[in-house]
Amino acid sequence: MHHIEIRVPTQGRGLYEFTEMASAWLHEIDAGSGLLNALIRHTTASLVLLGGADQALRDDLVAFFDRLAPEGAGYSHANVGADDMPSHIKAVLTGATLTVPVIDGALRLGPLQGLFLFEHRHPPQQRQIGLAFLAG
Amino acid sequence: MHHIEIRVPTQGRGLYEFTEMASAWLHEIDAGSGLLNALIRHTTASLVLLGGADQALRDDLVAFFDRLAPEGAGYSHANVGADDMPSHIKAVLTGATLTVPVIDGALRLGPLQGLFLFEHRHPPQQRQIGLAFLAG
Amino acid sequence: MHHIEIRVPTQGRGLYEFTEMASAWLHEIDAGSGLLNALIRHTTASLVLLGGADQALRDDLVAFFDRLAPEGAGYSHANVGADDMPSHIKAVLTGATLTVPVIDGALRLGPLQGLFLFEHRHPPQQRQIGLAFLAG
Repeated sequence: MHHIEIRVPTQGRGLYEFTEMASAWLHEIDAGSGLLNALIRHTTASLVLLGGADQALRDDLVAFFDRLAPEGAGYSHANVGADDMPSHIKAVLTGATLTVPVIDGALRLGPLQGLFLFEHRHPPQQRQIGLAFLAG
Repeated sequence: MHHIEIRVPTQGRGLYEFTEMASAWLHEIDAGSGLLNALIRHTTASLVLLGGADQALRDDLVAFFDRLAPEGAGYSHANVGADDMPSHIKAVLTGATLTVPVIDGALRLGPLQGLFLFEHRHPPQQRQIGLAFLAG
Repeated sequence: MHHIEIRVPTQGRGLYEFTEMASAWLHEIDAGSGLLNALIRHTTASLVLLGGADQALRDDLVAFFDRLAPEGAGYSHANVGADDMPSHIKAVLTGATLTVPVIDGALRLGPLQGLFLFEHRHPPQQRQIGLAFLAG
């Protein structure tokens, strides 16, 4: 199994695509066919498959999750910042890991799909994503 | 790695089981043990593991997600149809991909579980699901 | 592929960590590198990756999902107990399966992450989780 960690810098809540970084790495390791697993190594951001080309769609998604898990909703876990507990909730709702097929070295997603990091915290972060490729 | 694309026609919002299609394909390729990955190649429908034998349970699920992400909630992304942005939200909440174990050629799910496509849009669709089997 | 079923007893709604059980099994089978798949064989509990060391955080999570999918919200599927339909909803929102990388025999999670069973029902349960390790 090949594996690597990539870093994605984030500037506040929102969606950050990493499809190209994953594709470039698959090319670099001369991947054939198999499964790519991505795991975000943090608990206040998540990974989603999304048709994310439209900025309005991304804005609506961020706004939806803000309404669903608002800050200041009387959380007990409140010492790390008002955005921390909502971030944990959003991360659990959307998931920390994705596994997708790779065929002949290329990600086999739908034509409109991409791999996105969903950042839930306000302050800038350096997020690490573990990529693992298992050939078959 | 074996892979195929199956098509599931949908007639509006709801849950459409594809466990039998997946099992039949595993039989066809004479699968031994390994992991089955399923990926829906669209961004307004999703894949879930569900105990879905009860129609009332399915109806409650659809109704819950309609209340959670209603149409006409002031979305910016609104040019594709009133049901489009709620569908993207529901898809992100429930997930585009599933990976499940296969033992001696058979899906190893819980006794009440099945693989379901969760359609979020109103108009009839032809949905494509990529299946990939990685033996081990 | 190696596989096993582990049992996790639960005492009502809440988060139950099984990271150590998974790690011990990987050690037992002398796992190298590959992917670990975990699948909960039930439809009213789920599996999540979580930074769960803080009890206040766990309590906030459980309370959030109780507000999101409350009991007695007029469900049609109501014959198995008032907590049953909310449990199915929570399970669909959080997911039945996780796939994570294993490097040199060890789970490769983020430093604060663990594998958790998320129990959604009130009565004590004996939950089964299927673990499968595919080497690569």
